[in-house]
Amino acid sequence: MLFARPLAELIAELEKLPGVGPKSAQRLAYHLLKATDAEAHRLSDAIRTAKAKLRFCSVCQNISENETCEICLDSRRDRTTVCVVGEPRDIAAVERINEYKGQYHVLHGLMSPLDGIGPEQLRIKELLHRIGENEIQEVILATNPTIEGDATALYLAKLIKPIGVTVSRLAHGMPVGGELDYADSATLLSALEYRREM
Amino acid sequence: MLFARPLAELIAELEKLPGVGPKSAQRLAYHLLKATDAEAHRLSDAIRTAKAKLRFCSVCQNISENETCEICLDSRRDRTTVCVVGEPRDIAAVERINEYKGQYHVLHGLMSPLDGIGPEQLRIKELLHRIGENEIQEVILATNPTIEGDATALYLAKLIKPIGVTVSRLAHGMPVGGELDYADSATLLSALEYRREM
Repeated sequence: MLFARPLAELIAELEKLPGVGPKSAQRLAYHLLKATDAEAHRLSDAIRTAKAKLRFCSVCQNISENETCEICLDSRRDRTTVCVVGEPRDIAAVERINEYKGQYHVLHGLMSPLDGIGPEQLRIKELLHRIGENEIQEVILATNPTIEGDATALYLAKLIKPIGVTVSRLAHGMPVGGELDYADSATLLSALEYRREM
Repeated sequence: MLFARPLAELIAELEKLPGVGPKSAQRLAYHLLKATDAEAHRLSDAIRTAKAKLRFCSVCQNISENETCEICLDSRRDRTTVCVVGEPRDIAAVERINEYKGQYHVLHGLMSPLDGIGPEQLRIKELLHRIGENEIQEVILATNPTIEGDATALYLAKLIKPIGVTVSRLAHGMPVGGELDYADSATLLSALEYRREM
Protein backbone atom coordinates (compact mmCIF):
# COMPACT_ATOMS: atom_id res chain seq x y z
CA MET A 1 0.00 0.00 0.00
CA LEU A 2 1.51 3.31 -1.09
CA PHE A 3 -0.47 5.52 1.29
CA ALA A 4 -1.68 5.08 4.85
CA ARG A 5 -5.45 4.54 4.77
CA PRO A 6 -6.61 7.93 6.16
CA LEU A 7 -4.30 9.62 3.65
CA ALA A 8 -5.62 7.51 0.76
CA GLU A 9 -9.17 8.39 1.82
CA LEU A 10 -8.41 12.10 2.01
CA ILE A 11 -6.80 11.97 -1.46
CA ALA A 12 -9.86 10.11 -2.82
CA GLU A 13 -12.25 12.75 -1.43
CA LEU A 14 -10.13 15.64 -2.77
CA GLU A 15 -10.02 13.98 -6.21
CA LYS A 16 -13.80 14.28 -6.43
CA LEU A 17 -13.52 18.08 -6.54
CA PRO A 18 -13.82 19.63 -10.01
CA GLY A 19 -10.46 20.27 -11.68
CA VAL A 20 -8.53 18.27 -9.08
CA GLY A 21 -6.67 15.29 -10.59
CA PRO A 22 -4.72 12.57 -8.72
CA LYS A 23 -1.53 14.68 -8.56
CA SER A 24 -3.21 17.82 -7.23
CA ALA A 25 -5.21 15.74 -4.77
CA GLN A 26 -1.93 14.33 -3.40
CA ARG A 27 -0.43 17.81 -3.13
CA LEU A 28 -3.48 19.20 -1.39
CA ALA A 29 -3.55 16.25 1.02
CA TYR A 30 0.13 16.65 1.93
CA HIS A 31 -0.40 20.37 2.36
CA LEU A 32 -3.22 19.69 4.83
CA LEU A 33 -1.13 17.14 6.72
CA LYS A 34 1.72 19.62 7.06
CA ALA A 35 -0.61 22.44 8.12
CA THR A 36 -1.37 22.90 11.80
CA ASP A 37 -4.42 21.12 13.22
CA ALA A 38 -6.11 24.52 13.60
CA GLU A 39 -5.61 25.37 9.90
CA ALA A 40 -6.91 22.01 8.69
CA HIS A 41 -9.87 22.15 11.06
CA ARG A 42 -10.80 25.61 9.80
CA LEU A 43 -11.28 24.16 6.29
CA SER A 44 -13.08 21.07 7.58
CA ASP A 45 -15.41 23.23 9.67
CA ALA A 46 -15.99 25.79 6.91
CA ILE A 47 -17.32 22.98 4.69
CA ARG A 48 -19.73 21.76 7.40
CA THR A 49 -20.82 25.27 8.38
CA ALA A 50 -21.47 26.27 4.78
CA LYS A 51 -23.53 23.12 4.22
CA ALA A 52 -25.47 23.64 7.44
CA LYS A 53 -26.14 27.35 7.13
CA LEU A 54 -26.65 27.90 3.43
CA ARG A 55 -29.68 27.09 1.33
CA PHE A 56 -31.29 28.37 -1.84
CA CYS A 57 -33.34 31.57 -1.72
CA SER A 58 -37.01 30.61 -2.08
CA VAL A 59 -37.50 33.46 -4.57
CA CYS A 60 -34.46 33.66 -6.85
CA GLN A 61 -32.73 30.32 -5.99
CA ASN A 62 -29.45 32.10 -5.19
CA ILE A 63 -27.33 30.77 -2.30
CA SER A 64 -28.57 32.40 0.89
CA GLU A 65 -28.32 32.23 4.66
CA ASN A 66 -32.03 32.93 5.02
CA GLU A 67 -35.31 31.83 3.47
CA THR A 68 -35.06 34.90 1.18
CA CYS A 69 -31.68 36.28 0.06
CA GLU A 70 -30.36 39.80 0.66
CA ILE A 71 -30.80 40.86 -2.96
CA CYS A 72 -34.45 39.78 -3.06
CA LEU A 73 -35.11 41.54 0.28
CA ASP A 74 -33.38 44.78 -0.80
CA SER A 75 -36.24 47.27 -1.30
CA ARG A 76 -34.00 49.67 -3.23
CA ARG A 77 -33.68 47.19 -6.08
CA ASP A 78 -35.95 47.32 -9.11
CA ARG A 79 -38.56 44.55 -8.90
CA THR A 80 -39.68 44.86 -12.53
CA THR A 81 -36.51 43.36 -14.06
CA VAL A 82 -35.17 39.83 -13.57
CA CYS A 83 -31.72 38.79 -14.79
CA VAL A 84 -31.63 35.02 -15.41
CA VAL A 85 -28.25 33.31 -14.90
CA GLY A 86 -27.02 29.73 -14.97
CA GLU A 87 -25.08 29.57 -11.70
CA PRO A 88 -24.95 31.52 -8.41
CA ARG A 89 -21.39 32.63 -9.23
CA ASP A 90 -22.74 34.45 -12.31
CA ILE A 91 -24.60 36.81 -9.96
CA ALA A 92 -21.26 37.84 -8.44
CA ALA A 93 -19.98 38.56 -11.98
CA VAL A 94 -22.93 40.85 -12.77
CA GLU A 95 -22.87 42.52 -9.33
CA ARG A 96 -19.19 43.41 -9.81
CA ILE A 97 -20.01 45.81 -12.66
CA ASN A 98 -22.12 47.85 -10.19
CA GLU A 99 -24.68 48.82 -12.80
CA TYR A 100 -27.53 46.35 -12.64
CA LYS A 101 -30.09 47.12 -9.92
CA GLY A 102 -32.83 44.58 -10.68
CA GLN A 103 -33.51 41.07 -9.38
CA TYR A 104 -31.94 37.74 -10.35
CA HIS A 105 -33.01 34.20 -11.03
CA VAL A 106 -30.59 31.27 -10.88
CA LEU A 107 -31.36 28.27 -13.12
CA HIS A 108 -28.69 26.02 -11.49
CA GLY A 109 -27.45 24.72 -14.79
CA LEU A 110 -27.95 25.12 -18.52
CA MET A 111 -29.74 22.81 -20.91
CA SER A 112 -27.36 20.16 -22.23
CA PRO A 113 -29.03 17.13 -23.83
CA LEU A 114 -25.72 15.26 -24.08
CA ASP A 115 -25.30 15.47 -20.30
CA GLY A 116 -28.95 14.60 -19.75
CA ILE A 117 -29.83 18.11 -18.55
CA GLY A 118 -33.22 19.15 -19.89
CA PRO A 119 -35.56 21.97 -18.82
CA GLU A 120 -36.95 19.81 -15.96
CA GLN A 121 -33.55 19.80 -14.24
CA LEU A 122 -33.40 23.63 -14.20
CA ARG A 123 -35.27 26.04 -11.91
CA ILE A 124 -37.59 27.14 -14.72
CA LYS A 125 -40.91 26.38 -12.99
CA GLU A 126 -39.86 28.76 -10.20
CA LEU A 127 -39.06 31.48 -12.76
CA LEU A 128 -42.44 31.14 -14.51
CA HIS A 129 -44.15 31.23 -11.13
CA ARG A 130 -42.37 34.52 -10.29
CA ILE A 131 -43.33 36.06 -13.63
CA GLY A 132 -46.94 35.02 -13.09
CA GLU A 133 -47.15 36.35 -9.53
CA ASN A 134 -45.18 39.57 -9.66
CA GLU A 135 -44.83 42.92 -11.39
CA ILE A 136 -42.01 41.71 -13.67
CA GLN A 137 -41.83 43.63 -16.96
CA GLU A 138 -38.49 42.45 -18.40
CA VAL A 139 -36.55 39.20 -18.24
CA ILE A 140 -32.87 39.55 -19.19
CA LEU A 141 -31.48 36.18 -20.27
CA ALA A 142 -27.86 36.33 -19.08
CA THR A 143 -26.92 32.69 -19.56
CA ASN A 144 -23.43 32.05 -20.96
CA PRO A 145 -23.04 32.77 -24.71
CA THR A 146 -22.22 29.11 -25.30
CA ILE A 147 -24.23 26.45 -27.14
CA GLU A 148 -25.90 25.40 -23.85
CA GLY A 149 -26.52 28.99 -22.75
CA ASP A 150 -27.95 30.03 -26.12
CA ALA A 151 -30.20 26.95 -26.27
CA THR A 152 -31.47 27.64 -22.77
CA ALA A 153 -32.12 31.32 -23.61
CA LEU A 154 -34.00 30.38 -26.76
CA TYR A 155 -36.10 27.85 -24.86
CA LEU A 156 -36.92 30.40 -22.14
CA ALA A 157 -37.72 33.16 -24.67
CA LYS A 158 -40.28 30.89 -26.36
CA LEU A 159 -41.91 30.20 -22.98
CA ILE A 160 -41.89 33.74 -21.60
CA LYS A 161 -42.67 35.98 -24.59
CA PRO A 162 -46.28 34.71 -24.96
CA ILE A 163 -46.90 35.87 -21.35
CA GLY A 164 -46.43 39.44 -22.62
CA VAL A 165 -43.16 40.18 -20.81
CA THR A 166 -40.17 41.78 -22.60
CA VAL A 167 -37.41 39.19 -23.05
CA SER A 168 -33.86 40.36 -23.78
CA ARG A 169 -30.48 38.71 -24.15
CA LEU A 170 -27.03 40.05 -23.19
CA ALA A 171 -25.54 41.86 -26.21
CA HIS A 172 -22.74 40.26 -28.16
CA GLY A 173 -20.09 42.28 -26.47
CA MET A 174 -19.30 38.98 -24.79
CA PRO A 175 -16.61 36.95 -26.51
CA VAL A 176 -18.44 34.09 -28.27
CA GLY A 177 -17.87 30.75 -26.53
CA GLY A 178 -16.70 32.52 -23.38
CA GLU A 179 -18.02 32.09 -19.88
CA LEU A 180 -19.80 34.80 -17.93
CA ASP A 181 -17.84 34.04 -14.84
CA TYR A 182 -14.54 34.93 -16.57
CA ALA A 183 -15.62 38.11 -18.39
CA ASP A 184 -14.04 41.43 -17.36
CA SER A 185 -16.43 44.06 -16.02
CA ALA A 186 -16.11 46.39 -19.05
CA THR A 187 -17.12 43.66 -21.49
CA LEU A 188 -19.96 42.59 -19.29
CA LEU A 189 -21.12 46.20 -18.88
CA SER A 190 -21.36 46.76 -22.64
CA ALA A 191 -23.07 43.40 -23.06
CA LEU A 192 -25.67 44.49 -20.50
CA GLU A 193 -26.11 47.92 -22.09
CA TYR A 194 -26.72 46.57 -25.60
CA ARG A 195 -28.93 43.65 -24.59
CA ARG A 196 -31.37 42.95 -27.41
CA GLU A 197 -35.01 42.02 -27.30
CA MET A 198 -35.78 38.46 -28.36
CA MET B 1 -21.80 41.79 0.21
CA LEU B 2 -21.36 39.51 -2.77
CA PHE B 3 -21.35 36.24 -0.84
CA ALA B 4 -23.25 35.02 2.22
CA ARG B 5 -20.79 34.86 5.15
CA PRO B 6 -20.45 31.05 5.45
CA LEU B 7 -19.80 30.93 1.71
CA ALA B 8 -17.20 33.73 1.89
CA GLU B 9 -15.48 31.87 4.74
CA LEU B 10 -15.44 28.58 2.84
CA ILE B 11 -13.97 30.35 -0.21
CA ALA B 12 -11.32 32.01 1.99
CA GLU B 13 -10.27 28.65 3.47
CA LEU B 14 -10.15 26.96 0.04
CA GLU B 15 -8.00 29.80 -1.31
CA LYS B 16 -5.30 28.94 1.24
CA LEU B 17 -4.71 25.60 -0.52
CA PRO B 18 -1.69 25.49 -2.83
CA GLY B 19 -2.54 26.21 -6.48
CA VAL B 20 -6.09 27.35 -5.66
CA GLY B 21 -6.77 30.96 -6.70
CA PRO B 22 -9.91 33.04 -6.05
CA LYS B 23 -11.74 31.65 -9.12
CA SER B 24 -11.02 27.99 -8.37
CA ALA B 25 -11.89 28.55 -4.71
CA GLN B 26 -15.31 29.87 -5.80
CA ARG B 27 -15.85 26.91 -8.12
CA LEU B 28 -14.86 24.41 -5.44
CA ALA B 29 -17.14 26.12 -2.90
CA TYR B 30 -20.15 26.07 -5.25
CA HIS B 31 -19.41 22.44 -6.06
CA LEU B 32 -19.51 21.57 -2.35
CA LEU B 33 -22.73 23.52 -1.85
CA LYS B 34 -24.39 21.67 -4.70
CA ALA B 35 -23.12 18.30 -3.50
CA THR B 36 -25.24 16.30 -1.07
CA ASP B 37 -24.60 16.80 2.65
CA ALA B 38 -23.15 13.29 2.78
CA GLU B 39 -20.63 14.03 0.02
CA ALA B 40 -19.49 17.30 1.59
CA HIS B 41 -19.26 15.72 5.04
CA ARG B 42 -17.08 12.92 3.67
CA LEU B 43 -14.47 15.50 2.63
CA SER B 44 -14.81 17.45 5.86
CA ASP B 45 -14.42 14.27 7.91
CA ALA B 46 -11.56 12.93 5.78
CA ILE B 47 -9.57 16.08 6.62
CA ARG B 48 -10.20 15.69 10.37
CA THR B 49 -9.56 11.94 10.34
CA ALA B 50 -6.32 12.33 8.42
CA LYS B 51 -5.12 15.01 10.85
CA ALA B 52 -6.13 12.93 13.86
CA LYS B 53 -4.81 9.55 12.74
CA LEU B 54 -1.65 10.39 10.82
CA ARG B 55 1.72 11.38 12.19
CA PHE B 56 5.32 11.17 11.08
CA CYS B 57 7.14 7.83 11.37
CA SER B 58 9.65 8.15 14.23
CA VAL B 59 12.31 6.44 12.09
CA CYS B 60 12.01 7.73 8.52
CA GLN B 61 9.65 10.73 9.05
CA ASN B 62 7.24 9.43 6.40
CA ILE B 63 3.51 9.91 6.98
CA SER B 64 2.25 6.97 9.04
CA GLU B 65 -0.71 5.71 11.02
CA ASN B 66 1.58 4.24 13.66
CA GLU B 67 4.68 5.21 15.62
CA THR B 68 6.73 3.38 12.95
CA CYS B 69 5.60 3.19 9.32
CA GLU B 70 4.91 0.04 7.30
CA ILE B 71 8.04 0.40 5.18
CA CYS B 72 10.31 0.73 8.23
CA LEU B 73 8.62 -2.27 9.88
CA ASP B 74 8.85 -4.45 6.76
CA SER B 75 11.53 -7.05 7.58
CA ARG B 76 11.90 -8.03 3.90
CA ARG B 77 13.34 -4.63 3.06
CA ASP B 78 17.07 -4.01 2.97
CA ARG B 79 18.13 -2.08 6.08
CA THR B 80 21.58 -1.16 4.76
CA THR B 81 20.37 1.38 2.19
CA VAL B 82 18.51 4.63 2.85
CA CYS B 83 16.96 6.68 0.07
CA VAL B 84 16.67 10.36 1.13
CA VAL B 85 13.79 12.33 -0.38
CA GLY B 86 12.40 15.82 0.08
CA GLU B 87 8.70 15.06 0.56
CA PRO B 88 6.55 12.04 1.53
CA ARG B 89 5.01 12.03 -1.96
CA ASP B 90 8.48 11.32 -3.41
CA ILE B 91 8.39 7.93 -1.67
CA ALA B 92 5.28 7.05 -3.67
CA ALA B 93 7.17 8.01 -6.87
CA VAL B 94 10.09 5.70 -6.04
CA GLU B 95 7.82 2.87 -4.82
CA ARG B 96 5.93 2.95 -8.12
CA ILE B 97 8.98 1.72 -10.07
CA ASN B 98 8.89 -1.48 -7.95
CA GLU B 99 12.67 -1.81 -7.91
CA TYR B 100 13.97 -0.16 -4.76
CA LYS B 101 13.80 -2.39 -1.68
CA GLY B 102 15.69 -0.34 0.91
CA GLN B 103 14.57 2.20 3.51
CA TYR B 104 13.65 5.87 3.14
CA HIS B 105 14.22 9.12 4.92
CA VAL B 106 12.01 12.18 4.38
CA LEU B 107 13.62 15.60 4.88
CA HIS B 108 10.28 17.49 4.72
CA GLY B 109 11.64 20.18 2.47
CA LEU B 110 14.78 21.18 0.60
CA MET B 111 17.30 23.88 1.48
CA SER B 112 16.22 27.20 0.03
CA PRO B 113 17.95 30.24 1.56
CA LEU B 114 15.62 32.66 -0.27
CA ASP B 115 12.61 31.07 1.46
CA GLY B 116 14.44 30.97 4.79
CA ILE B 117 14.76 27.17 4.72
CA GLY B 118 18.15 26.11 6.05
CA PRO B 119 19.41 22.71 7.25
CA GLU B 120 17.85 23.29 10.70
CA GLN B 121 14.34 23.27 9.16
CA LEU B 122 14.91 19.82 7.60
CA ARG B 123 14.87 16.40 9.31
CA ILE B 124 18.66 16.07 8.99
CA LYS B 125 19.45 15.45 12.67
CA GLU B 126 17.13 12.43 12.53
CA LEU B 127 18.98 11.12 9.45
CA LEU B 128 22.40 11.48 11.07
CA HIS B 129 21.07 9.75 14.17
CA ARG B 130 19.87 6.80 12.05
CA ILE B 131 23.23 6.52 10.29
CA GLY B 132 25.00 6.57 13.64
CA GLU B 133 22.78 3.93 15.24
CA ASN B 134 22.15 1.43 12.46
CA GLU B 135 23.79 -0.83 9.92
CA ILE B 136 23.40 1.69 7.06
CA GLN B 137 26.02 1.28 4.33
CA GLU B 138 24.70 3.51 1.57
CA VAL B 139 22.74 6.74 1.49
CA ILE B 140 21.08 7.50 -1.86
CA LEU B 141 20.35 11.21 -2.14
CA ALA B 142 17.13 11.29 -4.18
CA THR B 143 16.23 14.94 -3.71
CA ASN B 144 14.85 16.71 -6.79
CA PRO B 145 17.48 17.61 -9.44
CA THR B 146 16.72 21.30 -8.92
CA ILE B 147 18.91 24.04 -7.42
CA GLU B 148 17.40 23.40 -3.98
CA GLY B 149 17.62 19.62 -4.31
CA ASP B 150 21.23 19.72 -5.56
CA ALA B 151 22.27 22.13 -2.79
CA THR B 152 20.64 19.89 -0.17
CA ALA B 153 22.34 16.80 -1.63
CA LEU B 154 25.74 18.52 -1.63
CA TYR B 155 25.26 19.65 1.95
CA LEU B 156 24.27 16.13 3.06
CA ALA B 157 27.12 14.48 1.14
CA LYS B 158 29.64 16.69 2.98
CA LEU B 159 28.11 15.70 6.32
CA ILE B 160 27.72 11.98 5.69
CA LYS B 161 30.82 10.97 3.72
CA PRO B 162 33.21 11.58 6.64
CA ILE B 163 31.21 9.00 8.65
CA GLY B 164 32.46 6.38 6.18
CA VAL B 165 29.13 5.62 4.50
CA THR B 166 28.76 5.43 0.72
CA VAL B 167 26.82 8.46 -0.55
CA SER B 168 25.25 8.38 -4.01
CA ARG B 169 23.00 10.64 -6.04
CA LEU B 170 20.27 9.72 -8.55
CA ALA B 171 21.83 9.53 -12.04
CA HIS B 172 21.15 12.27 -14.55
CA GLY B 173 18.53 10.30 -16.34
CA MET B 174 16.20 12.77 -14.67
CA PRO B 175 15.35 15.82 -16.77
CA VAL B 176 17.33 18.72 -15.31
CA GLY B 177 15.09 21.14 -13.42
CA GLY B 178 12.34 18.55 -13.20
CA GLU B 179 10.54 17.31 -10.12
CA LEU B 180 10.77 13.77 -8.80
CA ASP B 181 7.07 13.61 -8.24
CA TYR B 182 6.33 14.11 -11.96
CA ALA B 183 8.95 11.71 -13.43
CA ASP B 184 7.76 8.63 -15.29
CA SER B 185 8.81 5.30 -13.87
CA ALA B 186 11.23 4.43 -16.72
CA THR B 187 13.19 7.67 -16.26
CA LEU B 188 13.25 7.24 -12.51
CA LEU B 189 14.38 3.61 -12.88
CA SER B 190 17.37 4.52 -15.05
CA ALA B 191 18.21 7.38 -12.70
CA LEU B 192 18.24 4.93 -9.80
CA GLU B 193 20.31 2.37 -11.73
CA TYR B 194 23.02 4.85 -12.72
CA ARG B 195 23.22 6.66 -9.38
CA ARG B 196 26.76 7.90 -8.87
CA GLU B 197 28.89 8.01 -5.76
CA MET B 198 29.52 11.49 -4.38
